[in-house]
This record gives sequence, structure tokens and C-alpha cells, in this order.
Amino acid sequence: MFRSLTQLLAIESPVIQAPMAGVSTPELAAAVSNAGGLGSLGVGAGSVEQARTAILKTRGLTSRSFNVNLFCHDAALRDEELEKTWIESLRPVFAGFGGSPPETLTEIYQSFIGHEAMLAMLLETTPAAVSFHFGVPERNVIQALRERGIVTLATATCLDEAALIAERGVDVIVAQGYEAGGHRGMFDPLALDTQLSTFALVQLLKKHVSLPIVAAGGIMDGAGIHAMLTIGADAVQLGTAFLLCPESATDEGYRDRLKSSHMHQTDMTHAISGRAARSLDNDFCRAGRSAGKDAVPAYPVAYDIGKALAALAKTHGHQGYSAHWAGQGVNLIREMPAAELLQTLVREAGL
Amino acid sequence: MFRSLTQLLAIESPVIQAPMAGVSTPELAAAVSNAGGLGSLGVGAGSVEQARTAILKTRGLTSRSFNVNLFCHDAALRDEELEKTWIESLRPVFAGFGGSPPETLTEIYQSFIGHEAMLAMLLETTPAAVSFHFGVPERNVIQALRERGIVTLATATCLDEAALIAERGVDVIVAQGYEAGGHRGMFDPLALDTQLSTFALVQLLKKHVSLPIVAAGGIMDGAGIHAMLTIGADAVQLGTAFLLCPESATDEGYRDRLKSSHMHQTDMTHAISGRAARSLDNDFCRAGRSAGKDAVPAYPVAYDIGKALAALAKTHGHQGYSAHWAGQGVNLIREMPAAELLQTLVREAGL
Repeated sequence: MFRSLTQLLAIESPVIQAPMAGVSTPELAAAVSNAGGLGSLGVGAGSVEQARTAILKTRGLTSRSFNVNLFCHDAALRDEELEKTWIESLRPVFAGFGGSPPETLTEIYQSFIGHEAMLAMLLETTPAAVSFHFGVPERNVIQALRERGIVTLATATCLDEAALIAERGVDVIVAQGYEAGGHRGMFDPLALDTQLSTFALVQLLKKHVSLPIVAAGGIMDGAGIHAMLTIGADAVQLGTAFLLCPESATDEGYRDRLKSSHMHQTDMTHAISGRAARSLDNDFCRAGRSAGKDAVPAYPVAYDIGKALAALAKTHGHQGYSAHWAGQGVNLIREMPAAELLQTLVREAGL
Repeated sequence: MFRSLTQLLAIESPVIQAPMAGVSTPELAAAVSNAGGLGSLGVGAGSVEQARTAILKTRGLTSRSFNVNLFCHDAALRDEELEKTWIESLRPVFAGFGGSPPETLTEIYQSFIGHEAMLAMLLETTPAAVSFHFGVPERNVIQALRERGIVTLATATCLDEAALIAERGVDVIVAQGYEAGGHRGMFDPLALDTQLSTFALVQLLKKHVSLPIVAAGGIMDGAGIHAMLTIGADAVQLGTAFLLCPESATDEGYRDRLKSSHMHQTDMTHAISGRAARSLDNDFCRAGRSAGKDAVPAYPVAYDIGKALAALAKTHGHQGYSAHWAGQGVNLIREMPAAELLQTLVREAGL
């Protein structure tokens, strides 16, 4: 079965490097694709021009398929009072680093939903694959991409999301388990989180959905890949496993923390961005636990002040407010070039 | 590797039926053991005499190994004010069923920690295996059991708990993932939950602990068993998979709900018992989400009123306050006799 997905994506091995906006680079994506997997770019946090530049740069580094990931979140439900209270609650933390919080917050990322210019750029540059997170575009958008030969993928964290993805005509479902690092792909951030693990979600989707399934979350090595294929996944997606690759844009503080001998614990936090995301446990996660998730403005509004705080703290050498996303498998992380990592995974998995 | 665990436990197949206090029966445990797995009794919620009776009854039904599970929770931190407030918050719910809540609450279960009479009964009846949940007894207790030839197992949800289990001289670690139904085995219910999935936890423990590892949580079929053995588990433990066996004490309302065509969602709730436990989402879970976990008295104090409410609601044909524990794999449940289920699992897993 996973052969057909590799054929669809024109890749050798059913291993996808997760998009990871802010961490993935053209160099990383190209290295993975050149090694026979599917490299990915995360362009949801940038402009159309930044996305175009990244795509063209990647194309210059590989002639193989790669994937471009977009954010499909609904517009933020703004709440001026809540935003003000959140800003004030973080004011002492900013003050501790000799700074002040922004006075107002902005919806810093434009969703791909209704983003005509981004769609036009994709139709023009035609990456082999386009994937969606936080939601799924309308049928006509999927159809337009398909007509240009672009394979589409979308993240589901539960069966209802998978059903909607299938209904919209998307080709492949990325089954994101609760273990996964970074932002949880839930379409409705206010819904009750099913918390389904990758293992539980893949099995559930295989039973009820006929689309190919990519297992994502907690997978770090070949044994894990083999296990996920055993329960019916058609491919796997790994993000955290690539964080220490030299081709990644992981910054020094993040790398240092990942490489520390300390046993890492992760937390699913809303505090950093306004949406649930799995991070190495840090000061921001702790602040979020004591504030409660209802205290945090909507995504990506909260991310505006979150990024400001992280940047300020970093100028003081403090990494505790940075978005150090990581999945539950983080303690199995290995540091090696992306091509070597991909080859290692394929060999270990017996693919 | 898993052969050595089957040898240690003197079983044919590395499949353990989870203890499930309130659901497991001598008939269920014996059927599983007679079919080549390890049946279990959950005696943590009963008296020494009830436990003895269950053990002797099981022994009358099988000559093979079976396991007896004990609760090792710390004494509840009582908080009279909090308990009063919780009782009052549930008063309208009781009133809705024409009843009243208890005026005061009791610590309804005695922990195995320091429970001399329970230990004496185990040393006398010598079940092949004894397992621990919520904690681990002192070294001398483990040693006393070992001297009687009893194999010991203990639940860990994270690496620190696994390390303590190993240090105390326990033979086997049950790696309970976040998917698992029923009570989460965390030693300290106030600690930050690692939320590690079975998949992530098993891999982490295999890397850092030398004891045999039993994977528990979300496993429902042979493919899942095979996958867990692939990532290094020495055996697997399944609970939810056995809920619909005719030998289980699962009551009619619980069975009806499990068999409904509805796609089930689970929730990790403190509301029912005072400790985190994964349940089919119901009225009690919803009440818990709106109250917040800090509003709920400690385990097993909260369980006293929880059981009273469930019993009252049931007399009105309402099952929404019952402890309908279930793991994330619940939608893969199958109804068949325990021996047939065990044989099916073994065949599917290619064991």
C-alpha cells in the first residue's frame, strides 16, 4: 500500500520531513528529497514573495519532489479586553528583561484560506506537493492545485477532520498524533481535543478512511517507522528528528537545549502562540499552566507578543520564552546531516 | 527478548489482560490464562477477604499463571473546605435525580502501601504475578514476594517512575501510555503529566531501563501488538479490548454504550475519582472540564461521591455519571469470548 503513496509523490522512501515553519530551509528540504524522501518547506508564517523565493531556491537544489506547507487557520476571534489583560500579565516578565510589551497585538500570519496571491504563486511554481495545517481549503482550491499536477496533503488529528479532508478532495491525510511537536493541527482550536496518539489515530483512520495515511508524531527511528507501517500507515512524517541537522534553521539556543544531557519533558501549551503546540517545557509553558488557556488570546495574535518576549529574552541570553517545539520522542534525537539521517532511517526500518 | 518475559511469567504468548478493578473477574482472568496469556485480577478496590476469594476462585478455574493488581497510592491529602465545595457543586446534579449528595466523604480504598494483611494474604496464596499501580512498595515487600516465587510488575508513565520501580527490585515495568483507559498510574498525581504515548514511552524506557517492558495503552489488535513488539516491548497489556468479553463484569449500560454505533471520544478526567483517568466522554467528564481539576478532592475521596452519583443516576436509567473507562483505541473494540479474543490477537500478531 505504501508503494502507491511513494508513487503518487514520486519518492523512493515513504518518509516525509515535517514542514516546521521557522526551522525548515530549502537546504533541509532538498537534502531530504535528494536522499529519496519528501522534503518540506513551511511557508505559512511568511509572505508570498518569501514563499516563492524558498520554493525557487529549493528547486535549484533538487530536481525531486518536495512539499510546501500552508496554514489554513480561521481568522482569529479578537477580544480586546482579553488581549489587554494578557499583555499586562506579561508586563512584569518583559520588565524583568528591561523591556516593555507591545501595546497592541496583531494577527501576524495570513491564512491560506482566501489567500488568492499565495494560491496563484503555487499554481505558477507548481511544487510537487502542497500540504495544509489547521484546516483545509475549499474544493475549488484543491481542484485548481490538482489540475496543475500538485499532490495535496492535509493534517487531521481526529476522524471528523479526516472526513472533511477527504470530502474536499485532498489526496493524502497526515495523521498527527498528540505526541507531535509544534502546533497541533486541530481545525477548531476551541473543540475538545481528542488527544489521540499517532498509534491510535492511524488505526482509527485506516479503519474509516480510504485515503493514504501519513503517520506523524513521536517517530524518531527506523523501528518506529516500521511499527507505524505495520499498523497501516502508508508513510511517516518526522519533524523533531530533523531539528539537529546542520541544514535546519534551529538556532543555537534551541540546539544547545536539545543537546543537553538533561532528559527533556514536553508540554502542550497555548501560551506561546494562542494555539495548542507541543514545546520543550520552559518558562512560557509554566506561565501558560498557571494562567490557564482561557487567558491566552487567539492564534496568531498571542504569537505576536510571544515572539516579542522570546526575542527580548534572547538578547539577555535567556531561552526560556522561545518556541522550542519538540515532540515526545525528543530524547531519541540524533545529530547528523539530513541525507545521512534519512538513509539511516530507511536502513533501520528495513525499507 | 520477549521470550524471556514469557518464560518469567510462564505464559505462552506475551499478552496480558489488564487488571481493570470492577471489570475483571476470576472467569475473565482464567479464560485469558487458559488461552496462553496472562489473566489479571484488580483487587485494589476491595478488602483482603474479597481479594483472597477472587484469587482462590481464579485458581479453581486455571492451573496457569495469573496476575493480581494492587493500588499503591499515597494517602489522600484531605481538604475539608474543598470537599464541601465539591459536594455542594454536585448537589444540583443529585437533586436532578431526586437525591442528595453524601454530607461527608471517605477515603474509600486502602492503599497496598503499609497494608500488612493484604501482603500476608498474597504471601499465603502466592499468585504467579503481582502488579502495582499508582506507586511501588518498599524493597522489603518486593523481596518478600520474590522469596515466595511471585513475579512483580509495576506501572510507569515516565522515566523517573520506571527508574524508581527498577531501584525497588520489581521484575517488570508496565509502560502505560497516555492512550490507556482507566486510571493513569502516575505516582504523584500533582506532578506535571508527561502525557507520553505508549509508543513514545516504550521507546524511551527501552533506551534507559534494562527491565522487561510491557506496552499498555491503545492496543486493540494483532497489528498493534506486532507494532509494539517491533519498537522493543517485551509484552503488551490490553484492557479496553476485553471490556465486551462475556466474562467481564462490564455492566449493561457500559456495554450498550460501547456497542453503540456512535464514534466514541475519550477524555482524561479527574472528576470521577479525583485522579486522572481516561473515560468515554460523558456528563461527568463535562462537569470536570467546567469545574477544573483543582476543584476536585483527592483520590479516592472524590470517588466516594462519584460512585454515589453514578449509582443514583443509574437508578433513573442515566449512565452519564458512570465510570465508563476506555482507552483511545475503543472504537476498535470487538465482542467475543476472552479465549477467542486472545487466540485472535495471537494469530493476527503472527506470534
